[in-house]
Amino acid sequence: MTTNKRTAKATQESLHSIFTIPEAPDSTLGLIEKEISENLAGFLGNHIAAKERALSEIEKDFASSAIPEEPSFVSDHTRHILDKVVAQSVHTSSPSFIGHMTSALPYFILPLSKLMVGLNQNLVKIETSKAFTPLERQVLGMMHRLVYQDNDHFYEQWMHSANHSLGAFCSGGTVANLTAFWVARNNLLKADGDFKGIAREGLFNALKHYKYDGLVILVSDRGHYSLKKSADILGIGQDSVISIPTDGHNRIDCQKLREKCLELKQRNIRVLSIVGVAGTTETGNIDPLDKMADIAEEFQTHFHVDAAWGGATLLSNKYRPLLKGIERADSVTIDAHKQMYVPMGAGLVVFKNPASVASIEHHAEYILRKGSKDLGSHTLEGSRPGMAMLVYASLHIISRPGYEMLINQGIDRARYFAKRINQHADFELITEPELCLLTYRYNPKAVQNLLASSSAEQQDKINDLLDDLTKFIQKRQRENGKSFVSRTRIEVQRYQGRKTVVFRVVLANPLTSNEILNDVLVEQLELAQESETFLPDLLSLT
Amino acid sequence: MTTNKRTAKATQESLHSIFTIPEAPDSTLGLIEKEISENLAGFLGNHIAAKERALSEIEKDFASSAIPEEPSFVSDHTRHILDKVVAQSVHTSSPSFIGHMTSALPYFILPLSKLMVGLNQNLVKIETSKAFTPLERQVLGMMHRLVYQDNDHFYEQWMHSANHSLGAFCSGGTVANLTAFWVARNNLLKADGDFKGIAREGLFNALKHYKYDGLVILVSDRGHYSLKKSADILGIGQDSVISIPTDGHNRIDCQKLREKCLELKQRNIRVLSIVGVAGTTETGNIDPLDKMADIAEEFQTHFHVDAAWGGATLLSNKYRPLLKGIERADSVTIDAHKQMYVPMGAGLVVFKNPASVASIEHHAEYILRKGSKDLGSHTLEGSRPGMAMLVYASLHIISRPGYEMLINQGIDRARYFAKRINQHADFELITEPELCLLTYRYNPKAVQNLLASSSAEQQDKINDLLDDLTKFIQKRQRENGKSFVSRTRIEVQRYQGRKTVVFRVVLANPLTSNEILNDVLVEQLELAQESETFLPDLLSLT
Repeated sequence: MTTNKRTAKATQESLHSIFTIPEAPDSTLGLIEKEISENLAGFLGNHIAAKERALSEIEKDFASSAIPEEPSFVSDHTRHILDKVVAQSVHTSSPSFIGHMTSALPYFILPLSKLMVGLNQNLVKIETSKAFTPLERQVLGMMHRLVYQDNDHFYEQWMHSANHSLGAFCSGGTVANLTAFWVARNNLLKADGDFKGIAREGLFNALKHYKYDGLVILVSDRGHYSLKKSADILGIGQDSVISIPTDGHNRIDCQKLREKCLELKQRNIRVLSIVGVAGTTETGNIDPLDKMADIAEEFQTHFHVDAAWGGATLLSNKYRPLLKGIERADSVTIDAHKQMYVPMGAGLVVFKNPASVASIEHHAEYILRKGSKDLGSHTLEGSRPGMAMLVYASLHIISRPGYEMLINQGIDRARYFAKRINQHADFELITEPELCLLTYRYNPKAVQNLLASSSAEQQDKINDLLDDLTKFIQKRQRENGKSFVSRTRIEVQRYQGRKTVVFRVVLANPLTSNEILNDVLVEQLELAQESETFLPDLLSLT
Repeated sequence: MTTNKRTAKATQESLHSIFTIPEAPDSTLGLIEKEISENLAGFLGNHIAAKERALSEIEKDFASSAIPEEPSFVSDHTRHILDKVVAQSVHTSSPSFIGHMTSALPYFILPLSKLMVGLNQNLVKIETSKAFTPLERQVLGMMHRLVYQDNDHFYEQWMHSANHSLGAFCSGGTVANLTAFWVARNNLLKADGDFKGIAREGLFNALKHYKYDGLVILVSDRGHYSLKKSADILGIGQDSVISIPTDGHNRIDCQKLREKCLELKQRNIRVLSIVGVAGTTETGNIDPLDKMADIAEEFQTHFHVDAAWGGATLLSNKYRPLLKGIERADSVTIDAHKQMYVPMGAGLVVFKNPASVASIEHHAEYILRKGSKDLGSHTLEGSRPGMAMLVYASLHIISRPGYEMLINQGIDRARYFAKRINQHADFELITEPELCLLTYRYNPKAVQNLLASSSAEQQDKINDLLDDLTKFIQKRQRENGKSFVSRTRIEVQRYQGRKTVVFRVVLANPLTSNEILNDVLVEQLELAQESETFLPDLLSLT
């Protein structure tokens, strides 16, 4: 045999084996798996480098655009992944990673995920998912009941009905919100007389038929960016997402909302949806959903609640009342991969009316035939993994009271941290935690005093410097790798609504202790001293 | 302590432990994991029930809509999942499951998936994904190069550029196609003079500004159903997806395509995109992409190729020429979870022009800030898992020549099966395999002869009975659980374009042997005899 042929034969044999025989258990991959199974936190602690490299440096490891012409041994490649990928990934489950909504996972999630991947079901249709289809319908039923609290009879009737759906499981909150507006849009601009409906004829004909001069979505100025993205995709346009001002607690001003509705009605512009936010991304506050439902009812418009992050609060009997009115929403988005402790890629939307998804129903010849129970008839995505199983398992193993404890603990911890920040002379709490999210900044006592006695113009100048300092501390803290808070820019009432840079902290990880929170503040104090220009410039003003 | 308090304390302790201490290794979950790791095929074979239960029976196990008030032990719940979910799931990796595009996974995928889940990165932004961001950009670069074959300099310049993107990774082909049309639509109807662009002003104003009387997508009548779904979502409307007839080989008729373009131009209707299909879902054929590119060029329209399934063929130097012209497409969809042997949830779209995604760029205050390299600025989805790592590992471990062997083997196997069907008197091959997909049906020799000498009317009657028989066999075969083929309904030229029910077979699993294929035919012959009305009725006509 020539070398080429020998290589080809060897490749063919090894190819067959990668579909059949796992490596010996003492291989690199086997060892890693063992380590992950026995002690995930230890594994991540050992392998994720404490000190982060600059992104431009990391990019050098991912510079080749050529697909390899030579196969790598599994062990070699695993070692490479450990060194180049894992080492420079983000320790999202670390108790001191309190900057974003991604947190720790219960240990049973890992083996169950492996089972899910091994089963490799495709939930678009029953023929490739079988029991996973009723399982997902049950999960949607449970989440629907969590929101709407309908009775047993309701769920018996609709949960497994072929032509209905209590919701749609999807990859995340953005697709969930998009699906909600798609359903709302198609129901609003449905077939009527000669008009075959927007689904078939499109938006141009729909607006002409219904003689509307526009279509808008109303949400507070704290609405998530996915709403504008959805409006763009659906052909409505980003400018048709109208921001309604918030009050001092980052909640929509219902009087202004109602005034806007009246004004739009006079201008013959149809409100596609009023959107309530249950847990704003940047401050964690909840809109007055009950009052919003009244307004939606008055103007006969779709009422959507974006509870991607805060929806899990419904699992807490103690804090559920904060979301009062959510049960009056036509659709609600909840991300299981946020406060339900399920890994990435598990979002969902539930619909009050199980028949509303008929407006987006679609069929094909090879699957999704009329009358089939294939889930794909009522989802935006096509092929999808069996992530619903992880939500199903978590709901059973953690159970509602378990989730309640997790939710309540997070809120308690946020209140503790807010208290600590308030007590500390050199920090300024910007937004109080309503759920387990708060914002604050480092602001030395002397500067705080100066701000209090300054003119608006002088305040702006000081705040500009503070913004730079906040950015400096946040970046440096992330790079040091000991702990992580995020940052954002929000309007602050006490500074005449000026957009101000703040630290943003999300306290969902059950392993985050008060000690860790105190350490975060100590580190930020130290980092502030490292700033060579911003802090001296600030102090020179005092 | 009261019972309630004791329960609460116990729950709290166990809650803390589920985030820290895995179960003892001899637990149910531990044993399952060991079994999966050592022998996935054996595990699936042992636990997936051979005989399937009726869906209505399975639904009884998923009937409760209440979220449990009592936590389950992990081991108990794992046992429950084995009995109720795994047992009634679909053995998609079985070598005799040849009905859909979901196939076997290489063994290294399982531990790497577990690693991916354990890391729980969120690829919307660098702060929650770090090295995964350049990794995903590299994967997009590799896939872009596979399609477009640009030079090193091109990739050095664009692969890691903040304001550019060679493509978008997403959950699957539907989102990939939707993203492609979103980009195309926003580039076509971009800002111009006073008009701020469709992204901001929406479709109604855009069509008014550009004075078009409509916007359409052109694709052969074999186009995937996700195209109509995309047109609906984007506000164009399903009726604006215009089907162009196919030739005898299920490929778009380019003359008819060109005529349609001319007609639309005269009617002032703008073509948003011409779509080539590289591997039709139902017959596996490839459109004449090069000729389509000529037409797209002539009419200056976006050219998209839906290669969700067939795109992996580019990895085969032998069969790559079948897709000639794909390198002229403006955008191309490829699903890694189909012929690239990656688990569910890995689709992508690549763009010829790295700047084209600017038309869908979006920002927020807390992430995706201008100039950042956060992937989320140019994706439809928000939070997303690190699936790109599995594609990355597969490209390295299997390598291009390894993929070539897998692709070539599948096509060879399909040709073998087609030959066997042609040789057998009682089967009728409906579509020849161009890639590894073919369609056929059971059709006894005597009935074939009768069809040949029948009037069109009589043919219809016979074909109606054959349709029923095909459905009967396909359903019974699936229920028996030994093997699985899918079915669809396609226009067959030899029967005057009548929509005919056929078996559909996809031969991507490298473990499917010729013997298994022969067994599938034997089983179908036996099942035909079990039909108590369709076969006797058919034979009574002869």
